Amino acid sequence: MLAFLMSLNRLILKTGAEKRLRAGHLWIYSNEVDTERTPLKGFVAGEQVLVESDRGKSLGIAYVNPNTLICGRLVSRDSDYALNRSLLVHRIKVALSLREMCFADPCYRLVYGESDGLPGLVIDRFNDVFVVQISTAGMEAVIDEVVEALNKVFQIKAILLRNDGKMREMEGLETYVELVQGDLPELSPLTENGVDLLAPLQRGQKTGWFYDHRANRARMQQLVAGKRVLDLFSYVGGWGVQALAAGADMVSCVDASHFALEVARENARINGKEERFDPLHGDAFDICKALVAEKEKYDLVIVDPPAFIQKKKDIRNGERAYARINNFAMRLLKKDGILVSASCSMHLQRDRLIDIIRSNSRELDRNAQIFEQGHQGQDHPLHPAIPETDYLKAFFARVLPGS
Amino acid sequence: MLAFLMSLNRLILKTGAEKRLRAGHLWIYSNEVDTERTPLKGFVAGEQVLVESDRGKSLGIAYVNPNTLICGRLVSRDSDYALNRSLLVHRIKVALSLREMCFADPCYRLVYGESDGLPGLVIDRFNDVFVVQISTAGMEAVIDEVVEALNKVFQIKAILLRNDGKMREMEGLETYVELVQGDLPELSPLTENGVDLLAPLQRGQKTGWFYDHRANRARMQQLVAGKRVLDLFSYVGGWGVQALAAGADMVSCVDASHFALEVARENARINGKEERFDPLHGDAFDICKALVAEKEKYDLVIVDPPAFIQKKKDIRNGERAYARINNFAMRLLKKDGILVSASCSMHLQRDRLIDIIRSNSRELDRNAQIFEQGHQGQDHPLHPAIPETDYLKAFFARVLPGS
Repeated sequence: MLAFLMSLNRLILKTGAEKRLRAGHLWIYSNEVDTERTPLKGFVAGEQVLVESDRGKSLGIAYVNPNTLICGRLVSRDSDYALNRSLLVHRIKVALSLREMCFADPCYRLVYGESDGLPGLVIDRFNDVFVVQISTAGMEAVIDEVVEALNKVFQIKAILLRNDGKMREMEGLETYVELVQGDLPELSPLTENGVDLLAPLQRGQKTGWFYDHRANRARMQQLVAGKRVLDLFSYVGGWGVQALAAGADMVSCVDASHFALEVARENARINGKEERFDPLHGDAFDICKALVAEKEKYDLVIVDPPAFIQKKKDIRNGERAYARINNFAMRLLKKDGILVSASCSMHLQRDRLIDIIRSNSRELDRNAQIFEQGHQGQDHPLHPAIPETDYLKAFFARVLPGS
Repeated sequence: MLAFLMSLNRLILKTGAEKRLRAGHLWIYSNEVDTERTPLKGFVAGEQVLVESDRGKSLGIAYVNPNTLICGRLVSRDSDYALNRSLLVHRIKVALSLREMCFADPCYRLVYGESDGLPGLVIDRFNDVFVVQISTAGMEAVIDEVVEALNKVFQIKAILLRNDGKMREMEGLETYVELVQGDLPELSPLTENGVDLLAPLQRGQKTGWFYDHRANRARMQQLVAGKRVLDLFSYVGGWGVQALAAGADMVSCVDASHFALEVARENARINGKEERFDPLHGDAFDICKALVAEKEKYDLVIVDPPAFIQKKKDIRNGERAYARINNFAMRLLKKDGILVSASCSMHLQRDRLIDIIRSNSRELDRNAQIFEQGHQGQDHPLHPAIPETDYLKAFFARVLPGS
């Protein structure tokens, strides 16, 4: 260890650039590096470095990528602790203690990147199956240690690498999916809010399941007994099947993927609710248009689309898409129906989504009351210095007649 | 009714001033009125008027106060429906249906002003006891109708008017507390999150109880079993006694009011937890200072102060006070303790409170993870056109060692 630490190169910051790090942030931007003293091209993508202020004060250890705008991410504020198996075991145990405090079942996002002190690493847990998603060269460089650390902390049935996220290309990393340990069935079991479900870890979106809406789905469960529910962009039924399990009379799940709807049906079946499950295959906008034309009405409509805004330049078009789908959803509500409107776009401000609900309700001569303001769940903690770690919004609105 | 409607004066807006109302807002500012055609001094405080755009388009019915900056508040978008007993009954029933959907016990904020279409009116329900708080001349003008409407909808034991809020002076109204119907004991029973409690409706703060933190307290209950808890600004034990009921090992409640602490003790007693209840009388800042000096440590500290920021001009000093008390709280935490940091100041932005948590944690060389972002409860719905209806914040942060 000592030999490793002594072998580390130094990365020296420009005057004043240490302030943001001291204030809690973990990122170093390429224009903050004193490239005369420590040229970026002198570093290998993924290598660990000792970070120093212009006056030689140690700021800790970061891993670097000379080819990206965020050229360094701090992994430790103590220059005695580099990112290795031992630190990974420690950080995973600290992350685990938060999840064990919050959840009864071993099904959650175990590691949420920067917020758990492990930039570039996401680990979702499905009982004894772990799905790992690495998005940076620095974390990729310790991939074996990540697998070893998991085995040190848990009894493991399987570890799947879902290294096919969008950030990897920017980092110069290949995208691949690899089962590095154990065996996996096509669908893996998980429990969320007391409901048993199945997720397609290999073929599904992202890590196969979206734990981030857990708390919002728990609130939804309180509202749906005996109700007729429409679940737009349902994927494998995270919302819709939990609505069925909570006593909804009928749930229509809309998704563009036949495969997702087949898994949703299976989820309905294992909860004994297949007869109340109504899959609608197709584009959510097209299906909404048809449902409006048929004058269909629902007690509760869930709008949980994929991120319509991926980059800042998409904000305008993205907001229009959110407005359109929320407009459809509102037109499909009974006279005092409930709209659950969510967005996972980090670039969509909370206030903007509230305003989309406001403007649509007025346009349809209705009054909206927002009685729940939801966020990502407890296994996706917010890093208070990094606003980018806060991305999920969910509003529950009662949409009343307009007078 | 028709005669009443025909007798109403008109209030004519300036060109374009109808836009905000059409977009959902309910307030009319005095500089938006066409005072040449309809001089404000021609109106009596509290009278109802027909609101019209400059082109004579009807916008509904408002009540007015010529002496306040907000000179009108819309009570109906339909000029056939004025604010009378019948409309109050209707609005109260609509409000009731939201609360009955959300809560098992008849204890909640029944009417939350503008968000329930009843500007200037707050009604808190404690089983069959109702506490009414009126803040505008327009609502004061129909006070008898409010009492009648409540009797039309509910079987009532008592109605208490807590007309001693701060806004009344601006509206030219007297402040008074009056039991207008029935009898009241000194302490009235309520149930929140499954815990039976008592509130001093006549002598207590505001309406006697703060229902707005219900959901945040429910989350807190999940975290406190076997823990040592400090409840700053405890008032009558809304947080602290619910922590005891949820299995906390010991709860210290800090408040400057002997009376509040006596009621808190009584709340601990009726929950069979008096032995684990530790009242600390005094100023919260002073007591924190002493506890820090004594090196006391807690598993969980609740910071739920009164509004340190009442007006925009107080933002700077208020933020400093929030920073100081959060700093104390963090120093009183064990090494992976939990901070619950709340603010009811509408003028304190959510981001600012997150930043106060961030800066304090760094100053103490600790890392904060915010794993819950709380808001006011479901009986305090947000009006999507009126940001002022959204005021309460609560963050749950795990405060870890800093490396």
